[in-house]
Amino acid sequence: MNNFHFHNPVKILFGKGESSNFKDEIPVGSKVMILYGGGSIKKNGVYEKVQEQLKDYEVIEFSGIEPNPHYETLMKAVEIVREKGIDFLLAVGGGSVLDGTKFVSAAVHYPNGDPWNILSKGDIKSITNPLPIGAVLTLPATGSEMNGNSVITRSETKDKLGFGTPLVMPKFSVLDPTVISSLPERQVANGIVDAFVHVMEQYLTYPVNAPIQDRFAESILCTLIEEGPKVMNDSSDYEAAANFMWAATMALNGLISTGVPQDWSTHMIGHELTALHGIDHARTLAIVLPGVMQVMLQNKKDKLLQYGANVWNVTNGTEEVKVNTTIQKTVDFFESLGIKTRGSEYGITEATVDEICNRFEQRGVNALGEKGDLTIDNVRQILKMRL
Amino acid sequence: MNNFHFHNPVKILFGKGESSNFKDEIPVGSKVMILYGGGSIKKNGVYEKVQEQLKDYEVIEFSGIEPNPHYETLMKAVEIVREKGIDFLLAVGGGSVLDGTKFVSAAVHYPNGDPWNILSKGDIKSITNPLPIGAVLTLPATGSEMNGNSVITRSETKDKLGFGTPLVMPKFSVLDPTVISSLPERQVANGIVDAFVHVMEQYLTYPVNAPIQDRFAESILCTLIEEGPKVMNDSSDYEAAANFMWAATMALNGLISTGVPQDWSTHMIGHELTALHGIDHARTLAIVLPGVMQVMLQNKKDKLLQYGANVWNVTNGTEEVKVNTTIQKTVDFFESLGIKTRGSEYGITEATVDEICNRFEQRGVNALGEKGDLTIDNVRQILKMRL
Repeated sequence: MNNFHFHNPVKILFGKGESSNFKDEIPVGSKVMILYGGGSIKKNGVYEKVQEQLKDYEVIEFSGIEPNPHYETLMKAVEIVREKGIDFLLAVGGGSVLDGTKFVSAAVHYPNGDPWNILSKGDIKSITNPLPIGAVLTLPATGSEMNGNSVITRSETKDKLGFGTPLVMPKFSVLDPTVISSLPERQVANGIVDAFVHVMEQYLTYPVNAPIQDRFAESILCTLIEEGPKVMNDSSDYEAAANFMWAATMALNGLISTGVPQDWSTHMIGHELTALHGIDHARTLAIVLPGVMQVMLQNKKDKLLQYGANVWNVTNGTEEVKVNTTIQKTVDFFESLGIKTRGSEYGITEATVDEICNRFEQRGVNALGEKGDLTIDNVRQILKMRL
Repeated sequence: MNNFHFHNPVKILFGKGESSNFKDEIPVGSKVMILYGGGSIKKNGVYEKVQEQLKDYEVIEFSGIEPNPHYETLMKAVEIVREKGIDFLLAVGGGSVLDGTKFVSAAVHYPNGDPWNILSKGDIKSITNPLPIGAVLTLPATGSEMNGNSVITRSETKDKLGFGTPLVMPKFSVLDPTVISSLPERQVANGIVDAFVHVMEQYLTYPVNAPIQDRFAESILCTLIEEGPKVMNDSSDYEAAANFMWAATMALNGLISTGVPQDWSTHMIGHELTALHGIDHARTLAIVLPGVMQVMLQNKKDKLLQYGANVWNVTNGTEEVKVNTTIQKTVDFFESLGIKTRGSEYGITEATVDEICNRFEQRGVNALGEKGDLTIDNVRQILKMRL
């Protein structure tokens, strides 16, 4: 195992009814901005619960944070925060609302010109006095509720970029699994696949003798495979929803990546498909991951065999047979959730492949993967294979 | 899964060389007390590394914290802290030093008379302005490096009592697995068993459909079973030592107990054996746990069968056969590490059994176990069975 630092101070309030139980977490006297999305929280009862919790605070609302939250939208929130002297941000929503809120938090007192620099120049170190964040999660998927990561899209340039810093970790996150019962099937499926791929990107690299991390990763994968379909069949199954929700949080809170290599190439490539074609984030991952597994097979073979054996019980046949069976089982799992895994099914053509490779070239992105040897040619291979 | 709150803000610095890499974690200008034990840190090089890290700080040393740290000893540290105006405590040692340091932290500004009340009356809520703690761990076992628990012994009355509060969680803990190479075999064996039983007490209860927690628990158990003997065979095996160390931390940092029942009866009974007979803490657990498994079988049967199947691969035979095989495998594992598991092998007689039951009766302890139905009669049965 490699050396690591691990520090995750996010407080989790988990379970039925916790959305009516968080007001003590917000400092008395705070001026709170509630940030949310398209208004689904007004249909599922979460909005009323949050209002009830905040009745002793001065509150301003900011709605309309879109999926793949836009820099342009968020800068409007930043303006209002500055103008009104807001000092606490409460994100109520899924990963997009949380990610967007993190950007607002970092941008408000950013001293170095346009806060877009945080993303485009990776200028984390200039972030000054970020606003404290609380979160009420309404959609398990991204893990944003227990980490300092954020991905923001600039609609003008179709750039979808991420930043990460402990400075924008939520102070607390409320995870009430009852919210899942009101989610559309499509969002549940997306959440399962997103969490699944998060684990894979911290696990499917090469072995470094880290059995706790490997077993924890396999634990999350097995739980998603087992509980995901139950939630799809019956989103009011509280126990399955709770297990799915906790699995998604554990998938990206820094725990399983301690001391092990990581490979975020599937996300990097997937982000481009969303930026250019508007495909749901999770669906881009389902398209790209099987290609990364195939093309980067030599780097990943040992872990692929381990993953096949421990997660899918693939133990018979030659190594080649086992690897292929394992990749196919992964694809079948995504498809079983109603997620198409071929780019052509989403209208992607070779022209998009070229465009993505060009964009990577322009940005100087040419060393992805756990060993930094995934080239732009490999990106091309991966995407063509998955058309 | 049950509702839960989870909040673990301890920062972990893990790996070779991290004991020379923590000075930025202590606020500049702090007056630091280094607390340690019998001086083994002067033989293994840790003392010099710590001194080097603290060369820009005003430092006072307090040594002589014994195994099962004594209230009487710790109150001397409290006096010095008050007198010298110490404002940061650095624990350098194993669980006893860490637990003792937590008591000092809580006692210094305790406003309600004798700080022993924190233990004897469970008076956590009066703890005021506890001193911040850092830790350099020299012995993986108790998990104290990543939790707010502490167990203290009053030698005068032979009381061994615990308290727990997030207020005394370390701000940071340094986990450098190279320290393990200088440990006596006896302490390594104790550490493996202590961590193993910690997991069991959060896992071996009854199922509440919490697959992430169950699988994480089984992951830690399997890793201890696999890596423990490697460390016993060769304590300079860095990779095995690292895996053992991380497993012991994960065993008691609050993660696997989220949303599930717990049963700390083995620890409660074991503490009495230590208090009365001075038996190493881990060894008392190895004596008691198999008795708890037998006597409380009806409560624990489903989880015992799950534990047998997933950890020991016990899948054949009737339920009775499987349960007995599983308990025997647990005993055999402890014995394989050189840990005797019978009370009589440590000089315990029926007189001790009576004394422990009387002490529980006097303290009104009569409802142990995950369902609160483990009676003093059960304690008697458990201990007699394990003589």
